[in-house]
Amino acid sequence: MSRFFSPKYRELTPYTPGEQPKEMQYIKLNTNESPFPPSERAIEEAARAAKRLQLYPDPECRELNASLAKVLGVLPDEILLTNGSDEILNFAFMAYCDENTPAAFADITYGFYPVFARLNCVPYTTVPLKEDFSIAVEDYFGLGSTIFIANPNAPTGLALTRSDIERILQANPDHVVVVDEAYVDFGAESCVPLIHKYDNLLVTQTFSKSRSMAGARLGFGVGCRELIADLNTVKYSTNPYNINSMTMAAGLGMLADEEQTKSRIKTIVENRAFTKAALEEMGFTVTDSRTNFLFAKHPNVDGEALYLGLKERGILVRHFSTPSIKDYNRITVGTREQMQAFLDGVRKILEEQT
Amino acid sequence: MSRFFSPKYRELTPYTPGEQPKEMQYIKLNTNESPFPPSERAIEEAARAAKRLQLYPDPECRELNASLAKVLGVLPDEILLTNGSDEILNFAFMAYCDENTPAAFADITYGFYPVFARLNCVPYTTVPLKEDFSIAVEDYFGLGSTIFIANPNAPTGLALTRSDIERILQANPDHVVVVDEAYVDFGAESCVPLIHKYDNLLVTQTFSKSRSMAGARLGFGVGCRELIADLNTVKYSTNPYNINSMTMAAGLGMLADEEQTKSRIKTIVENRAFTKAALEEMGFTVTDSRTNFLFAKHPNVDGEALYLGLKERGILVRHFSTPSIKDYNRITVGTREQMQAFLDGVRKILEEQT
Repeated sequence: MSRFFSPKYRELTPYTPGEQPKEMQYIKLNTNESPFPPSERAIEEAARAAKRLQLYPDPECRELNASLAKVLGVLPDEILLTNGSDEILNFAFMAYCDENTPAAFADITYGFYPVFARLNCVPYTTVPLKEDFSIAVEDYFGLGSTIFIANPNAPTGLALTRSDIERILQANPDHVVVVDEAYVDFGAESCVPLIHKYDNLLVTQTFSKSRSMAGARLGFGVGCRELIADLNTVKYSTNPYNINSMTMAAGLGMLADEEQTKSRIKTIVENRAFTKAALEEMGFTVTDSRTNFLFAKHPNVDGEALYLGLKERGILVRHFSTPSIKDYNRITVGTREQMQAFLDGVRKILEEQT
Repeated sequence: MSRFFSPKYRELTPYTPGEQPKEMQYIKLNTNESPFPPSERAIEEAARAAKRLQLYPDPECRELNASLAKVLGVLPDEILLTNGSDEILNFAFMAYCDENTPAAFADITYGFYPVFARLNCVPYTTVPLKEDFSIAVEDYFGLGSTIFIANPNAPTGLALTRSDIERILQANPDHVVVVDEAYVDFGAESCVPLIHKYDNLLVTQTFSKSRSMAGARLGFGVGCRELIADLNTVKYSTNPYNINSMTMAAGLGMLADEEQTKSRIKTIVENRAFTKAALEEMGFTVTDSRTNFLFAKHPNVDGEALYLGLKERGILVRHFSTPSIKDYNRITVGTREQMQAFLDGVRKILEEQT
């Protein structure tokens, strides 16, 4: 730290991204990436855009915006495309939280929320999950805060229904409720259809998971025009050209291949069921995941020991040291072969224990 | 604007990017882009990266960082790569300005500085340029502020010498001085060699201009390790994966072609001299630009009228309505053919006037 660093940030503890080993010999089940490359069309469009990089990108992302609006069934000015969904989440903290309007989110959820709150010098409260990691909807009624809900939640994988979220929206008419749907495509109900009914709803999604574009950084927010106008004011005051030309082109390419995306999601959901059943057979407790990862613990093996044992065998999963979830590991659902290798690794570790 | 928008942003006036017409039939001399595409190597590397977009990018940008460090003659941990130089500039406003440490910059300079200040709720003062648009170095002594200097300055094109900047650094030992070198490659002295001498110096640069990558969003800051550590804390609290894989790959490709970059810079500098001489012959006053643009006014033609007349003829330049510079236009230096077309257009407009 330098002697010039603003006192407001001296205690700032940044977010810790999952390991990204350069060597790549690992079976990577630690950052919820898709095991599938982007579609051929997306790759071609990105390569074509690379040839014209000397020109600034369209700051309004008009073409991609129009295409995404069609897919989602909303209007182009009800969407803001951003540099990953982290950017739209940060914009929401900037636009809808301040010293008088705190943020509120679950105690166990996406680890970036408290970082965004501290980055923006915003007070926040955390709402404990129930013992079974589910969210008690009533705990979010009349909080007097801007609410952030990951749905499905991470790393638990559990989802609220759309009508549960609707109750939270109705109980907080004077506060924005941000529903972070990074994993929604893998089996939860999206709240996008509610944006015309509730002016306090902002839904965020990403191309990183179901659309195989984690490396491209593309996310978006969906909400009523007025919310999107606010967030555009923040965007144009931060980094107007923020979606680079290649990412925009790849995004357009992916949206032209929605059938392939749907079929890949189906494969992941099948592999999730297969892996969950196999883990349960080995004695694991596994949450009812609606995402592309599983969250599991075993009565006889320490969570960290399992993580380290798998790493030794060339398999990376994600372990969190937070006390309430330290017995668990979060395992990305990949191909059938990857899950088989993972299960084999787990089996050997369990055998060694006994 | 929604009823939820934080009061701190209700008066925020975002930055206005230069026009990016989709039709592309214009000769685009309005946003200081390079007329040359990125190198073949850059295009190939980006296309290769597009095939692996399902994986997150390396948040530490290790490979690109190492390569850039070699080119600049500094250590990897003296560099932070960012999503365009707008991002490193915003990070500097976040890290080194607050209610007790205001920002200071010229009254005529990059239009984003006051936007960043307001975005971060930071007080700022502007320092008037001299009548001839040059910077009076003494005006920056002991300001008690974090100083932002675009060198060369935009839209004037004028540069301070390295020893001038050194005097500002020495006169502000307890404040960070940010030297924004977006255009430095076109003929000004870079302050990068000073980073080992002054712990209060942050230099920012971009791949958007001399390296033909405006569409990719790649910029960076160079400073002592402690400053870079601060800025990394901000980065990892904002958007850790912020440089996407394709942009990183393209950047690596460009750095492998430094000879080509140098030869293209030479061409731009030649075309600048050619265009400046032709404009002066027509009676224009043209500043001594060290950038890839010219800043020029004519005694008989209104600045806005010239801009509009050129636009009608399919040539886009940039006009600013700020009173002190409204007689001028900022003209990007492109290929010889583009400059010839621009000069022909100007000639016809002048003829019509008389």
